[in-house]
Amino acid sequence: MPFTTAELNGEEDTESLVHPLLNSQRSVINSSSQVAIVGAKLCPVESLDYEIAENDFFKQDWRTRGRVQIFQYILMKWLLSLCVGAIVSLIGFFNNLTVENIAGIKFLVTSNMMSAGSYGMAFLVFSVSNFVLTLFPAAVTSYICPAAAGSGIPEVKAYLNGVDAPGIFSLGTLVVKIFGSISAVSSSLFIGKAGSMVHTGACVASVFGQGGSKKYHLTWKWLRYFKNDRDRRDLITSGSAAGIAAAFRAPVGGLLFALEEMASWWRSALLWRAFFTTAIVAVILRALIDVCLSGKCGPFGKGGLIMYDVTSTNVSYSFSDVPAVLILGVVGGLLGAVFNFLMNKVLWVYSRVNGKGTVYKVLLTCGVSIFTSGLLFGLPWLASCKACPTDAEEACPTVGKSGNYMKFQCSSGEYNDLASLIFNTNDDAIKNLFSKDTDSEFQYTTIIVFFLTCFFLTVVSTGVVVPSGLFVPIIVTGASYGRGVAMLIDSRSSLNQGLFAVLGAASLLGGTMRNTVSLCVMLLELTNNLLMLPLMMIILLISKTVADAFNGNVFDTIMKLKGFPYLENHAEPYMRQLTVADVVTGPLQIFNGIEKVGNIVHVLRTTGHNGFPVIDEPPMSSSSSPILFGLILRAHLIELLKGKVFSPTPEYSSSDVFQKFSADDFAKRGSGHGDAIDDIELSQEELEMYVDLHPFTNASPYTVVETMSLAKALILFREVGLRHLLVIPKFSSRSPVVGILTRHDFMPEHILNLNPSLTRHRWKRLRFFQLPRALKTLLGLQP
Amino acid sequence: MPFTTAELNGEEDTESLVHPLLNSQRSVINSSSQVAIVGAKLCPVESLDYEIAENDFFKQDWRTRGRVQIFQYILMKWLLSLCVGAIVSLIGFFNNLTVENIAGIKFLVTSNMMSAGSYGMAFLVFSVSNFVLTLFPAAVTSYICPAAAGSGIPEVKAYLNGVDAPGIFSLGTLVVKIFGSISAVSSSLFIGKAGSMVHTGACVASVFGQGGSKKYHLTWKWLRYFKNDRDRRDLITSGSAAGIAAAFRAPVGGLLFALEEMASWWRSALLWRAFFTTAIVAVILRALIDVCLSGKCGPFGKGGLIMYDVTSTNVSYSFSDVPAVLILGVVGGLLGAVFNFLMNKVLWVYSRVNGKGTVYKVLLTCGVSIFTSGLLFGLPWLASCKACPTDAEEACPTVGKSGNYMKFQCSSGEYNDLASLIFNTNDDAIKNLFSKDTDSEFQYTTIIVFFLTCFFLTVVSTGVVVPSGLFVPIIVTGASYGRGVAMLIDSRSSLNQGLFAVLGAASLLGGTMRNTVSLCVMLLELTNNLLMLPLMMIILLISKTVADAFNGNVFDTIMKLKGFPYLENHAEPYMRQLTVADVVTGPLQIFNGIEKVGNIVHVLRTTGHNGFPVIDEPPMSSSSSPILFGLILRAHLIELLKGKVFSPTPEYSSSDVFQKFSADDFAKRGSGHGDAIDDIELSQEELEMYVDLHPFTNASPYTVVETMSLAKALILFREVGLRHLLVIPKFSSRSPVVGILTRHDFMPEHILNLNPSLTRHRWKRLRFFQLPRALKTLLGLQP
Repeated sequence: MPFTTAELNGEEDTESLVHPLLNSQRSVINSSSQVAIVGAKLCPVESLDYEIAENDFFKQDWRTRGRVQIFQYILMKWLLSLCVGAIVSLIGFFNNLTVENIAGIKFLVTSNMMSAGSYGMAFLVFSVSNFVLTLFPAAVTSYICPAAAGSGIPEVKAYLNGVDAPGIFSLGTLVVKIFGSISAVSSSLFIGKAGSMVHTGACVASVFGQGGSKKYHLTWKWLRYFKNDRDRRDLITSGSAAGIAAAFRAPVGGLLFALEEMASWWRSALLWRAFFTTAIVAVILRALIDVCLSGKCGPFGKGGLIMYDVTSTNVSYSFSDVPAVLILGVVGGLLGAVFNFLMNKVLWVYSRVNGKGTVYKVLLTCGVSIFTSGLLFGLPWLASCKACPTDAEEACPTVGKSGNYMKFQCSSGEYNDLASLIFNTNDDAIKNLFSKDTDSEFQYTTIIVFFLTCFFLTVVSTGVVVPSGLFVPIIVTGASYGRGVAMLIDSRSSLNQGLFAVLGAASLLGGTMRNTVSLCVMLLELTNNLLMLPLMMIILLISKTVADAFNGNVFDTIMKLKGFPYLENHAEPYMRQLTVADVVTGPLQIFNGIEKVGNIVHVLRTTGHNGFPVIDEPPMSSSSSPILFGLILRAHLIELLKGKVFSPTPEYSSSDVFQKFSADDFAKRGSGHGDAIDDIELSQEELEMYVDLHPFTNASPYTVVETMSLAKALILFREVGLRHLLVIPKFSSRSPVVGILTRHDFMPEHILNLNPSLTRHRWKRLRFFQLPRALKTLLGLQP
Repeated sequence: MPFTTAELNGEEDTESLVHPLLNSQRSVINSSSQVAIVGAKLCPVESLDYEIAENDFFKQDWRTRGRVQIFQYILMKWLLSLCVGAIVSLIGFFNNLTVENIAGIKFLVTSNMMSAGSYGMAFLVFSVSNFVLTLFPAAVTSYICPAAAGSGIPEVKAYLNGVDAPGIFSLGTLVVKIFGSISAVSSSLFIGKAGSMVHTGACVASVFGQGGSKKYHLTWKWLRYFKNDRDRRDLITSGSAAGIAAAFRAPVGGLLFALEEMASWWRSALLWRAFFTTAIVAVILRALIDVCLSGKCGPFGKGGLIMYDVTSTNVSYSFSDVPAVLILGVVGGLLGAVFNFLMNKVLWVYSRVNGKGTVYKVLLTCGVSIFTSGLLFGLPWLASCKACPTDAEEACPTVGKSGNYMKFQCSSGEYNDLASLIFNTNDDAIKNLFSKDTDSEFQYTTIIVFFLTCFFLTVVSTGVVVPSGLFVPIIVTGASYGRGVAMLIDSRSSLNQGLFAVLGAASLLGGTMRNTVSLCVMLLELTNNLLMLPLMMIILLISKTVADAFNGNVFDTIMKLKGFPYLENHAEPYMRQLTVADVVTGPLQIFNGIEKVGNIVHVLRTTGHNGFPVIDEPPMSSSSSPILFGLILRAHLIELLKGKVFSPTPEYSSSDVFQKFSADDFAKRGSGHGDAIDDIELSQEELEMYVDLHPFTNASPYTVVETMSLAKALILFREVGLRHLLVIPKFSSRSPVVGILTRHDFMPEHILNLNPSLTRHRWKRLRFFQLPRALKTLLGLQP
């Protein structure tokens, strides 16, 4: 007998047998929140329309589409994938190069001052430049475009689940995201650029999906085919895959990240198109890097687009290494869980601070910047100087540019190992930590201090109001953790410390982000070493499993904190005890097949509903009782009212109504660009007229019977990707439709609010604290 | 406005407007085939039950499940994944080792005879050993277990889509598959072992999913949780991923293959479990190979589980290589399409031969074996001998074991380059072709002859009745094609010939199998060279796109040929012109909520239906007209009849009916193990009694209104994974249910049979022959 994840109830809730749950709650209004924090601002959110409105008008339109249009459409799909890939790779490359050059110059200037002995001046230059580099994105993001704050991954993930928020994909967001990210990452804040690239990629794709930008006169007729939520969803999935691919030069890893973490719906055809997009990214980046390697990209161009090359021809490991790897994985998972827990708390505190006003957002960000500058500059003074190794492959101490052996305050012939890590870009620190044959470079205390600093700074830096990612900070923290463990067990393992650093990074990524396949492939692509595959797989699985016992993944945690109504793809066990009638709320607004214009306007003005059932009452229906004809969308009603195809008496419209509209009128505009009912002006005479809704009503809406279990209705709603689900009565004597279910009706908060008795039965995932009891019962110690 | 793949109709089918399609065809019986060729035998097929039957009995059962059971279930899920991974990797290792040793000894003996000059004797030994090695699997497969024939990939793919056939996953099939595959691959037939490994992995997983084997007393109580089609599907998906992972030592590639090609439903939780399974495979194989490399696996143990290592530290390519790569991809795609076309024809001819009787199957297979032996032994005589290179890294001519320089008939100091490829195992041939720094090893004519031979032998060998795969033959054919192209363009590209061979293999794989992501990762894992990634991605996409313009992928082609009712995940455009009422067939069998036993027995005996709507007629229902209560499955009815909980008068059963049954009674047995209605003996008195169906009826069946468009009903059916979909009437005056839709009602053959007028509108994918017209229209040359 099946027992899906969701059914793992475990509580003997007999209550539901005693108290019948079915009762008339249809007058209750769904009060669950329809707003969410997008970036750093509270915005209203809206569901997307993935369902194809099968009405006569659209059917007619499809029939008239010839081969040419199909060909255009297919061609455009691939062409857009190509454009998205090309643009995102160029942005990624530009990002990397700019950051490398700005940060490079900053460290070069500071290092030179240090060499000249002017430490105070060096600190001033360092902290002021960091402050300015932070202030710019903080101000721009806070005042101009709050949607660009943070990584954007939770927003994109929610969008791909069917939740839209105004402005997340606008051209303005894109520009702020790109330049804000460059500036913020260059400012030595402990944030990454990869997360922002996901949002950037999604923005690029969305601009095409919205038919270009009317405001800047960048439109193209052929883009009209993509003005619907389904095609936009596909494009944005490809775009986010391209983002990660460009950030890490990991095309397959990026694709899998989009598949595993971001997308809620997926199919083979989309997989191939996304694969094409990331292939374009890979080819273009490869070509650009060839250009840079020949020295044409500024003083620090060669450092861009790192591939942490840890290839050693003989990565050999034996079974004696397994215990060390297991420990690394378990502790990495624990650290990841702690990280997610702390970050959740910090984000909550920050959101309170940010909520006080825009100026507080900027102040908080600048405070973190000053604090970070102080820490990065101050800590290396604590480390003792080490003598340069005699057999070092590169100059020691490092001359000018950032390298393995930073001089900092040391005398010549010596280097400061903590400064090599901390007074450096994160990318260079990762390279240092991952590099092989450097087992004696770092002192034990250095690694510990560095690890603690990274961990702490990552936690406090993530929530500041600038475009920021999480990948690179976590990789650098994990790498220092792995290197620390390697030093601890030292000679007891044949693996070199660089390899341990890679595995440590994997374990912390697994512990925070919890996606296994994409992280595995991404790390392999980053380090170019396939022989580590078995170890990498095992460590990711262990750290994920351990961390999952405590809390959820970092993106989901943030998404929940931001209040997005994300629809899970499984039903909670208590949903099997409820029927749809238990949660459906009212009041229900219904239109007649031929409806009075004034009535429509009134309903549209007084309610916020986006879909309305259309009913044929007896004189119009061929039956003796009213029958359900279908579902009409608010956006389509508004178009109908704008078109003013009214008749003075209630009568069926003739087929020439089709000529009065074009398919473009009913195309879904980008978020926030739809017309509002208040924009339409109608005369009193027109308000008294009638409009035939039949040709524009989706005659094939999905329906469930009111006694259907809520769990099954959720599966239908989620798998098919609906916005509205009509509830029809069990007994035929009543109205042909008794309610509409939307995304919000399936939210656990709403359901538990309606049925408080279920709260204590609410089953969460089997987390750690439940395990001891289960184990005891298993062993017969508890009845 | 949306325009999904399926809607790309393009024809202006105005007919459907002229002739209303809705008419009463409910008396038509669905005549679409319910049988398919499984392996090499025609068998009845059945749909699987993925839907959770939410009835009172199950709900009661769930409520009584405590923490312990949940813990057992979760633990078992991971434990079974571990077991499947471990067993499949051991089988894969054993397979490889045995094949290497058997084939190695065969070639060693023959080569030694050749060296001694006894060519006739060598041929005799070679062909007779091949004949015997072919006869054994051919006879065993034909007479004992026809389900083990072929690769099994189409069968597993159909199973994962919801189509079950008896015997495909039995313990017998598993044994025949393993030993048959070893023997057949050792016999120098042009077949591979990877495809069989997919089926083997699926079998291993299924044996666990069926609760072990009662016949051999291998059962375990905890396995009972997996006796349902949903958990079995998950296990088998993991198993097939493990199969590919073990065959190619490509854990991520195997996982992605299962995701991209095999699975119809997928979710994150399953992804992680499958990832765990393939990680186990990777770790175990890695450990076993370490053992073998120390020489403990027989004379040829080191050859097993190849990783075609083409790592060269500087894989450099520039834009000047792009044209060559493009041509390679385009021609590879064309070759792939031709291959699929020819294979389709050959399989059709073979199925006619095989249909004549079991003895014909064996004869055909033996015929192919003799022909292959002759060709492999005869062709090298045509090649001229080449002088050994002076700077060869290995002995020339090869001593004893198969190597790069086979002596064959040549005098000492010379080698036969065609024999090095053809008179060798396929694995060794691939190694030779992929190896770098061997640009002058082969003559141009040799490569051409070898390519043609491979292509031809692969086409004629695939359909023979032994366990056989397609991967390795296609890789070797593609590698020779790539090497040929490299020789043709020679100095015009900086890429070495080994690299071209890899790309050639990729292009032919892309052209036949058409999955991009998994092939890309698999080939990278095989060759251990991540730097080739951009080229690999591009070439796979090109060859796939080119080949898709002509026909479908090889597995789908075979599946269609075998007659499996595979449910696509998109609707055909003509389905939007139809409603469910247009396709639903009858007659419909309905039961009352409290039904007479004799009536049930009669209906079960006289129909083959597997699901029946349950209706409450007025005296029982609280409404004045009959209402739909739910859906009951045949298997559950049979259990009810076996339990004999009858009452002499029509009355509701008390709640103690739950005690009379255990959840295990209703667990889904493995395919072909369910009880039949004829096994149940009931007295005349019992037949006159009544049984209350309510507690065992799924009270939340999915329903659609009869006017729902067929396309939307299909999406619901496919996405939710249904077996039965109830059709309810639009008007409430009639019976509360008007029909049941099953998988077969959505099959294009059935729909087009009912509505012949649609045939000419049937839209196929935009294949090549349609392109010129579309292009012309686009350019305005055609109106």
